[in-house]
Amino acid sequence: MDKGLAKFGDSLINFLYSLALTEFLGRPTGDRVPNASLAIALDIAGLSKGLRRMDKHAKGDYAEALIAEAWLKGLITEREAVEIIKENLTNDVLDFSKKKEAIGRALAPLLKIVSERLESHF
Amino acid sequence: MDKGLAKFGDSLINFLYSLALTEFLGRPTGDRVPNASLAIALDIAGLSKGLRRMDKHAKGDYAEALIAEAWLKGLITEREAVEIIKENLTNDVLDFSKKKEAIGRALAPLLKIVSERLESHF
Repeated sequence: MDKGLAKFGDSLINFLYSLALTEFLGRPTGDRVPNASLAIALDIAGLSKGLRRMDKHAKGDYAEALIAEAWLKGLITEREAVEIIKENLTNDVLDFSKKKEAIGRALAPLLKIVSERLESHF
Repeated sequence: MDKGLAKFGDSLINFLYSLALTEFLGRPTGDRVPNASLAIALDIAGLSKGLRRMDKHAKGDYAEALIAEAWLKGLITEREAVEIIKENLTNDVLDFSKKKEAIGRALAPLLKIVSERLESHF
């Protein structure tokens, strides 16, 4: 896995999530997506079968690289990604004790779509 | 100043900078923009006259809110912002001891343009 791709993906996913949250709440706001949420998203999307020995951090990098690669290849636009995240957001993101899970659930469908498109692209 | 705007701006500026750096270097990569660089950028852009009593963190928030507001109001596109940052990037960003300054110099022209457009917008 390309570390540079994960670094770029980190900035991309935080931006996409912050924009989706801004539109969902109807006021400017932002948040960082924790690695724990990305690990949860991979689990829900059924993408963590081959990743059992990876820790949270490595899973976060993996998810970030997936989204970065798909976006840089033009397989998904920012607008489409933001709409998918927004559709899957709930008010649980405002509850500190439920936030990590809720962000994971909001991102899972995006990871699934991105992974399918990357597979059929090769 | 709106704290939510600064939060959104944090994700926006990190993304814009990471994309500009990716295009400048010709390989996927990313980095967070430190508050120190945003403070330097405000100084270079001549925007810190009224901010003398602000610390680095408050200056960072101020710069982030400026960019966020301009982008959310459609006064600048991502593409234009990325091109402006890219034009002002130098290889100094790859040198750890020069990085903070170099990021500040790369962002100063964007802050200047954004601030001018916000002023004439009101």
